[in-house]
Amino acid sequence: MGRKKNTDAIPHEAIRRLSLYLRDLKRLSQEKIRIVSSEEITRFLSISPAQFRKDLSYFGPFGKRGVGYDVEKLTGEIEKILGTEKLLAMALVGAGKLGAALLGYAGFLEFNLKIALAFDNDASKVGRVIHGVRIQSTGDMARLIRQRKIRMALLAVPAPNAQKTGHELARSGIRAILNFAPVNLNLPQEVHVTNVDMASEMGSLVYRLHPRPVSSKKR
Amino acid sequence: MGRKKNTDAIPHEAIRRLSLYLRDLKRLSQEKIRIVSSEEITRFLSISPAQFRKDLSYFGPFGKRGVGYDVEKLTGEIEKILGTEKLLAMALVGAGKLGAALLGYAGFLEFNLKIALAFDNDASKVGRVIHGVRIQSTGDMARLIRQRKIRMALLAVPAPNAQKTGHELARSGIRAILNFAPVNLNLPQEVHVTNVDMASEMGSLVYRLHPRPVSSKKR
Repeated sequence: MGRKKNTDAIPHEAIRRLSLYLRDLKRLSQEKIRIVSSEEITRFLSISPAQFRKDLSYFGPFGKRGVGYDVEKLTGEIEKILGTEKLLAMALVGAGKLGAALLGYAGFLEFNLKIALAFDNDASKVGRVIHGVRIQSTGDMARLIRQRKIRMALLAVPAPNAQKTGHELARSGIRAILNFAPVNLNLPQEVHVTNVDMASEMGSLVYRLHPRPVSSKKR
Repeated sequence: MGRKKNTDAIPHEAIRRLSLYLRDLKRLSQEKIRIVSSEEITRFLSISPAQFRKDLSYFGPFGKRGVGYDVEKLTGEIEKILGTEKLLAMALVGAGKLGAALLGYAGFLEFNLKIALAFDNDASKVGRVIHGVRIQSTGDMARLIRQRKIRMALLAVPAPNAQKTGHELARSGIRAILNFAPVNLNLPQEVHVTNVDMASEMGSLVYRLHPRPVSSKKR
């Protein structure tokens, strides 16, 4: 890590792409591929090999020119950079339709992420077990998150509850939120929020399905 | 619809916001609220009431100044604009971890969307029933999609198969794809693609969880 450059200079997009490389490396590993070129690893990602090499160069020299990259080793290096080398427990708030789907989503494990606690404010849901996780009352949320020192949360509550719940999570020590509520959360600077809004994508895709009068300009 | 303006002039973002309004209206309706002001409907959406009124104005005059909006009526109007007033059948390709979660996701129904067909190229998955939908072979995909005249698809296949599968979907008559594969699809113009990439979000959120040396500038 001695050659690691100042992390402040690393563009956010490079970090996002590291996640894609990691997922691709895991696939290659499953296919028993041991050494890959930058061309091979970027082939399906719509990313140029040069971009891949540049993204890695922020963190040190990983491959050997003309030899390629060791799949296992690069996987480990990227996991170390991202911080996904150890299992990280997450909290889920909101066990409605989307929350239940998230509880069943095994893809988090690719990033060593696991929903360890799940909460809902609906008494009829509390106590139910969904995909192996028992839903607990949001009344116990702050205490349990602190107790387990959980720092990452998935927020899948209805819009009207999102801001208030986000604040409670921040106060409980949560520092990263994947927010599925269609709300821009206003939270302290030290809490990183990424918004995922599938609903607005769905609606606008359906809109574009209709045959409409199309002007000649701008297609 | 006589007052409807030329749809070419409508910004994409306005269409996206209509989906958010629609979801909020459905929530208000469930809460037995009948009339709302633009302030009430935008309260939780981080959208200004003026923006809401402007977005609606592209399609006609819907509310009455000083009276507010009829929740049921506006719901119907927005559904008509988006084209979500009738149930729309979708095809899912890829019944892996993510595909299975999508099959279980009831939130599509808010937009009257339903996964009617699901496909996988893994023979061990074909024939299985996940959340009520039988997984069929991708070999039958083109024929079945044409037969049922399905025009919207969810693409949840691994990156290496995404481009090829996208092409097959386009040839089968699919005109809108919600793409979960981390690949920029290169498809004919008439096929609308929206990319959803949770993986890269996850990785970069975890990255930001580490304590790192923070420079004084740019927080």
